Amino acid sequence: MATIVFCSVNKTARTTVRRCLTSHLKGLASAGESHLPLSSTHSSSLALLPGTRWLSRGSSVRFMSQGTAGRASAGRTRRGALALSGAAAVTAAAAVAGFLANANHFQRAEMATKVLRAPEEKEPEGDISERCRGFMSPPVTDIAVLQKTKGEMRTRMEMLIMETQAEFCRALEEVDGGTFKVDRWKRKEGGGGISCVMQDGKVFEKAGVNVSVVSGYLTEEAAKQMRSRGKVLKGKDGKLPFCAMGVSSVIHPKNPHIPTVHFNYRYFEIEEEDGSKQWWFGGGTDLTPVYINKEDAFHFHKTLKGACDKHHSQYYTDFKKWCDKYFYIRHRGETRGIGGIFFDDLESPSQEEAFSFVKSCARTVVPCYLPIVYKHLNDAFTDEEKDWQQVRRGRYVEFNLVYDRGVKFGLATPGSRIESILMSLPLTARWEYMHEPAKGTREAEMLDALRNPKEWV
Amino acid sequence: MATIVFCSVNKTARTTVRRCLTSHLKGLASAGESHLPLSSTHSSSLALLPGTRWLSRGSSVRFMSQGTAGRASAGRTRRGALALSGAAAVTAAAAVAGFLANANHFQRAEMATKVLRAPEEKEPEGDISERCRGFMSPPVTDIAVLQKTKGEMRTRMEMLIMETQAEFCRALEEVDGGTFKVDRWKRKEGGGGISCVMQDGKVFEKAGVNVSVVSGYLTEEAAKQMRSRGKVLKGKDGKLPFCAMGVSSVIHPKNPHIPTVHFNYRYFEIEEEDGSKQWWFGGGTDLTPVYINKEDAFHFHKTLKGACDKHHSQYYTDFKKWCDKYFYIRHRGETRGIGGIFFDDLESPSQEEAFSFVKSCARTVVPCYLPIVYKHLNDAFTDEEKDWQQVRRGRYVEFNLVYDRGVKFGLATPGSRIESILMSLPLTARWEYMHEPAKGTREAEMLDALRNPKEWV
Repeated sequence: MATIVFCSVNKTARTTVRRCLTSHLKGLASAGESHLPLSSTHSSSLALLPGTRWLSRGSSVRFMSQGTAGRASAGRTRRGALALSGAAAVTAAAAVAGFLANANHFQRAEMATKVLRAPEEKEPEGDISERCRGFMSPPVTDIAVLQKTKGEMRTRMEMLIMETQAEFCRALEEVDGGTFKVDRWKRKEGGGGISCVMQDGKVFEKAGVNVSVVSGYLTEEAAKQMRSRGKVLKGKDGKLPFCAMGVSSVIHPKNPHIPTVHFNYRYFEIEEEDGSKQWWFGGGTDLTPVYINKEDAFHFHKTLKGACDKHHSQYYTDFKKWCDKYFYIRHRGETRGIGGIFFDDLESPSQEEAFSFVKSCARTVVPCYLPIVYKHLNDAFTDEEKDWQQVRRGRYVEFNLVYDRGVKFGLATPGSRIESILMSLPLTARWEYMHEPAKGTREAEMLDALRNPKEWV
Repeated sequence: MATIVFCSVNKTARTTVRRCLTSHLKGLASAGESHLPLSSTHSSSLALLPGTRWLSRGSSVRFMSQGTAGRASAGRTRRGALALSGAAAVTAAAAVAGFLANANHFQRAEMATKVLRAPEEKEPEGDISERCRGFMSPPVTDIAVLQKTKGEMRTRMEMLIMETQAEFCRALEEVDGGTFKVDRWKRKEGGGGISCVMQDGKVFEKAGVNVSVVSGYLTEEAAKQMRSRGKVLKGKDGKLPFCAMGVSSVIHPKNPHIPTVHFNYRYFEIEEEDGSKQWWFGGGTDLTPVYINKEDAFHFHKTLKGACDKHHSQYYTDFKKWCDKYFYIRHRGETRGIGGIFFDDLESPSQEEAFSFVKSCARTVVPCYLPIVYKHLNDAFTDEEKDWQQVRRGRYVEFNLVYDRGVKFGLATPGSRIESILMSLPLTARWEYMHEPAKGTREAEMLDALRNPKEWV
């Protein structure tokens, strides 16, 4: 029996989520090649909503696991959509609309490309304190300070990462029915963070969305190490004032047909001896499925490509390659997942344009991932599929503990908040000796994609 | 309902196990302070065997979970012992006799000390090919070569590690009822290994016992890295012929009241430019319980201390400290377990005496660990205790992937057999965000011992 789970987000948060996803829907509607008026797109998206099914639990009905299932069930599920609460319906609609835009590779891909070439992302209106109300917690920096420094990049970036955290957490709470545990922590040397973790939920085994904003002084050696392409920076008496901030997240779902997602967007500022500021952005979003689903992979990469293409025609190609290279488990000869995008040391063409690109990426997280979650929410799975998920979780742990630069840097840094760094580890994992899937199985197909990274778009 | 599981070892193997454990029993009998004649010791040990209980499955009866339970149940269980097959009875008797010698800290500890000051371990009699029959697989080096080089240290060490592997595997198979999967592997550059793994058994979640014997050439830099106290060695044209061999094992039981054990004994030989040979031994045995059981800790450390004291009065003190220091999870501020002994670069007082010490240590593995396994075999446990075990397993993974020198060296070495290196990881593990046991719980007691290493003897 399916039971409806009502979302528990507060009004302000709901508004934030709605704004973000409504604008995604508007983008969809305003795409040149789509000849549907806004209202029509809206209603056709809603018509595709399987309503109660999405937020239902305990049912083993497989929903939309094939590309055409959405259309086939459209009529049947129309009524269900009306039963959803406002925010849930809009989120779900936007998410699935984004997904469906990519589902039919030939007919709809062209449209999706246009959709994603939407006008430049604008910063939300309203003053700082108004915007802060939708956050999971007050920002790390004092609101009064943020208001005074409204135009500075570090303030704009802190607002963006706080918004990204709230938007993603609310979307996950909606689909799971659970609530994030919010922890604020302070760093003795300056700054702090907000860790949001939901554990053992209905949909998510472990979901973590962290924000950190730290500042202080770096040695010249440490400053060099903070960049992937080391650069010598001159400090006053060898010391460099710095500020580093970012939002990062890892989501491990329970159902092996829902992939794990990871994203991280960060900004650094270092002040040199002569007072000049060095700054750069880094980040990426990548997907780690347990089983290959070409449609999901296409949707995920296509959505990222859309965000990239708005800013530079080479970004997707370059950052997709960088992602496959970075998330590589050398001792296994496998990538961690099917990639996405990854970049670091981004300091061109201008600070404004680099920030605009990062903003596009951050706002793509929900439309990249949530449609895939909703699609597989009620997929049935076997014990063997769950076991394979657990084995893949083990590989995730191997990558994060052995290779991930962020984790290694964090573990080696005295005073780090270990729980926030290791929040990325799954709730459960498994290591089977000599586990090698038989030829021709879906597990072997997954391994093949990890051993030979593919082009998904 | 308890069902008896008969052991499935072959005759030769059974003989090896019996020989080893019989000699342990003889040692027990010949101890000066023990005024029992051999036959009496034998029968009194057997009288303490709870027989069918030990090898029974599916029962939730708590056996000997308190220090006095063994004595209390002695009468009741006498009959059960007679039902055991020969080898099982002798193994179990030796194991429990060793344990009980330490159970009563005041009365019996003195006896145990004497027991362990047994005469020098002798190498087993019989020719090489006869001794090889009890192994899990033929040795890595050709038997004909071993026969020709019978007196050389590398041959004697290879025989010791093969014997240690067989003895420990047989003892584990007896208690579990399962069978080890035996894999032989070759290294392109020279040598190879034998990996024995039992997975998802009745008692053991994952048990791995590896032997490797590898040889080839090292660069001067690599040779320096192989020693924990780096030493510059001169090679011919910068290259040094080397030979490295060892036995290593990690055992993860299912029942959270049975601790994880790890041991590793290894030998290195490097030939310098002038033809002189540098050699050294390394190794250790350490215990990682899920809950503190002072009696188990005392037994484990006391047995190791006994092996050390036979060779040098300072060994136990020094190597116990080294163990706590080595198995330290820095980012958690915790040791991995309650330690044991750990040493490296051992090259004194003579090769013969160092080998004799390593032999004593290797032969102490079964009497250190098996009594603890038998004691807790049927301990009942709750879901919460199982969860705590899984959290501790997560810490085990963290140590092994982040800090363990052997694992790091292995993962970074092209051509390593990854499955043998990572066999040390548990079958399952868990990471809970912000897991901190409540004050006064047994979980908090465990953490305290990991945060403040104790003296157990």
